[in-house]
This record gives sequence, C-alpha cells and structure tokens, in this order.
Amino acid sequence: MTGTLWVVGLGPGPKDWVTGAALAAVTSADIILGYTAYTNRITPRAGQIIEASDNREELVRAARALTLASEGKSVAVVSGGDPGVFAMAAAVFEAVDHGPPEWRALDIRVEPGVTAMLAAAARLGAPLGHDFCAISLSDNLKPWALIEKRLLLAAEADFVIALYNPSSNARPEQIGKAFTALRSCRAPETLVMLAAAVGRPDERLTVTTLAAADPAAVDMRTLVLIGSSATRTVGKSDGGVWVYTPRFAGRS
Amino acid sequence: MTGTLWVVGLGPGPKDWVTGAALAAVTSADIILGYTAYTNRITPRAGQIIEASDNREELVRAARALTLASEGKSVAVVSGGDPGVFAMAAAVFEAVDHGPPEWRALDIRVEPGVTAMLAAAARLGAPLGHDFCAISLSDNLKPWALIEKRLLLAAEADFVIALYNPSSNARPEQIGKAFTALRSCRAPETLVMLAAAVGRPDERLTVTTLAAADPAAVDMRTLVLIGSSATRTVGKSDGGVWVYTPRFAGRS
Repeated sequence: MTGTLWVVGLGPGPKDWVTGAALAAVTSADIILGYTAYTNRITPRAGQIIEASDNREELVRAARALTLASEGKSVAVVSGGDPGVFAMAAAVFEAVDHGPPEWRALDIRVEPGVTAMLAAAARLGAPLGHDFCAISLSDNLKPWALIEKRLLLAAEADFVIALYNPSSNARPEQIGKAFTALRSCRAPETLVMLAAAVGRPDERLTVTTLAAADPAAVDMRTLVLIGSSATRTVGKSDGGVWVYTPRFAGRS
Repeated sequence: MTGTLWVVGLGPGPKDWVTGAALAAVTSADIILGYTAYTNRITPRAGQIIEASDNREELVRAARALTLASEGKSVAVVSGGDPGVFAMAAAVFEAVDHGPPEWRALDIRVEPGVTAMLAAAARLGAPLGHDFCAISLSDNLKPWALIEKRLLLAAEADFVIALYNPSSNARPEQIGKAFTALRSCRAPETLVMLAAAVGRPDERLTVTTLAAADPAAVDMRTLVLIGSSATRTVGKSDGGVWVYTPRFAGRS
C-alpha cells in the first residue's frame, strides 16, 4: 500500500500568498510535518495530525514523511516560501536517493510557492527585473570559501543577488563577511535592500547602499538583495522610493 | 483623483497555481491589461474591461495602465508567472521613472506569483535545491556578448542555471549558442532539463545531458534548467527519474 507525499510551499507568510493547490494539498493530508514556524500557520481539520519539529532536522523529517507515506498515509511536508528553494524538497529527494527501494515507488508531488525573494522584490518594486542569482549564506551546508567565490563571480556577472539565510544566532558574522567581499568588487553606491518579515505586520523594508549597509540590521527573517550596476531607485511623491532593475542591459 | 495599479502574477498556467491575493486583485480591477496569452486566462466579471495587446509592447502597455490609474481607475496589469521576473513590473517602474510626475503619486502594488522556474523545478523534483541563477536569453534587450559572459561566469560559479526566453521564432539559434558556450566549460554529463508548457495538458519534461541536449527541442514555452556539478537523478520504480541538487555543496 502506497500513499502520497506532498512537499508544499506555503509562501512567505500571509494566507493570501498561498496557491490554491498548496492549500488543497495541506487540507487533504492525513499528517502534516514541518518546522514549527510553518506548521503553526495551519489550522488542522478534524482528524488531521500535525508533527512539528526543529529547523535543523530536515533529513530526519524527510525520512519520517517518506516512511509514513510508504505505510499508505497521505502526508504533507510544508515549507515557507517555495519548497524547492533552500527548503524541504531537496531533503526529501536526498532521503529517497539514500533510502530503501520502496520509497522510489511513492507518489511524490512538489507544490510550488512564492519564494521569499519574489515577495521581497514585489514590495520593493521590481529589483529582480533582470538576470539574478540566489545564494544561501548558511555555511552549515557549504564552506565559506565556496560562498565567497560565488559572491565574487556573481558580482563579476553583474547579477542582482538575493541572499537567503543571511544570518542566524549561530553565525551572525556571515552577512558582514558577504558585504566585505562585495565591497571589494562592486561600487559603493550599489543598492542594497533589506526586506524583513515580508508580508507580516512587522514588515520592514530598507533601501541603502553597499557602502552604508549595516550587517547588524540583518536577522534570520531578512532577505537581502544586492542590486546590479543597473538597479535604480524611483522617488515616490510621498518621499519613499521604488527600486527596479531595467529590462535593458547596458551595451557593455 | 488617483487610482490603484496592480501588477499581478498569474503563475505558470493552471488556476490552482495562482495566489489568493492575485485573484483578488484581478477581480477588483475595473480594467485589466496584458499580453493576450495571459488576459485569455481571465473570465471578466460584469462591467470589467480587458485590453489585450502584443507581447512586445510592454512599455506602451505600462504607460497606458499608469495613465488609466492616474485618471482614478482601478487597473490590473497581468503577467504569467511572477510579474517581477522578466515581466511587466520592471516595465511599469521604468515608465514611472521616465514619465510625468503624477505617476509617482500612484498606489502601485505588485502581487507576486509562482515564476516558471519554480513550477518546472517542482515537476522535476528539486533541481533548484542549491544556489542558482536566472538568465533571460532574449537579446532584444541585451547584447549576446553579455549573455555569454554571464553564462560562463554562472558555470564557473557552479550555479544551477535557469534559462528564460530560451528561443523564439525571431531568434531560434539562441539556445544552441548557449549550449555551445556551456559545453566549453561544463562536463558533458551535466544534467539539462527541458520543461515545456508546465502545468498544462501538453506538459513535456525532458531530462538529458549537456552533451545530448537538442536545441531544436526547445521552444518559447520551454524553461531550460542546467544542473550544477552536484545535480543528480534518482530513479523511480516506474523507470522515470527525479532530479535534485543536494543541499550540501562539495567541500571544494
């Protein structure tokens, strides 16, 4: 008997940023697994079981979900944002890759969601309007030397850069090191955007420059965007700004 | 009198991949503007006006939408996927940047959506599970030399690479040139994924290698993903494969 495993993206926070398919998957599951911050967003229906666990237990959670599905249960693993971007989907397939053969017979369905950089960009204007990259600053999963190499190559390519997991209690210094690396090769006036708690009541958007960007203003709920050389601000009548990256690249 | 301009992402195609906020914005607008392929997805309510236009008229459409909003109308401009990724949001802010001062007083709200690469990745497994970039191959908007430079730097950074606008009737050769550039620096066995018409009845997913990838199999409805050196396949019991990129990077 083989069940279904949904790997579901709940979007960046607000309920109205969730897709209909993601809501349907969560509603239909017998058991929902996820990091507490994400399962807390779900009001279980009668008979539905929620198993919340810690942020760092991705592979354990994936194996548990696969085991339950292989017992015939209908299971949903939930992530914030999109499950395929620095989230649970890769952990699930990694577990299948190294797990028992019966897991390869499961019906595994990934339900995409709005990932954090898209929501942050929407609030700011259109900073991702041209070529861009997404880099996780978590060095739990890769050495700092590789992160720095990617930052420098991304700067050379003149990508807009989205930085996920820019800071945590365990490694508050990562974002400062990233700013330092980028200052070595990008202009001081390069736009830097800090988007904290996007879509929540305590949302904070900061538009600054690479020269002025303060690592202490970045916490684990912040998505950091570094503009390309073409990224610009447009002043609003109320004194605020929008940020966008033109669709046309310079003829360099 | 000043209206509201929504810039709305309708997601990759199916209705159940649209967010609640995007649906609400489209429902509330007096006038909806967009490329015909996207406005065709909308069933207007009584009294609602739809203005469809050609794909290439982004800046004209943006100016028209801003003009209508400044006359007090409630206006929605719709894009497929996410409006901030190679779509209408950058055109709107570019128009504001170069337009009359009153446009800077408008209430402009960007509603994010599921962009094509997230949907393609979800169907394939989790190929975007680690650092990645998104590059548009359209050289209407930038010179080929810049596209090629970015491809080579992205390859050197070992990003997973998502290629938007890989081909069109006007430039069918772009994707072949991109494969040629990548073959100069990435291993022949690098995974290449072609995701066509994702979420539609005629969806086609192809998993191949950089050596074997056929440019003729790529059309304008295809999203192309190039794996990193770590991107792997996992065999399913039914003979198919999932593709994922491990969360852990090599200790290079």
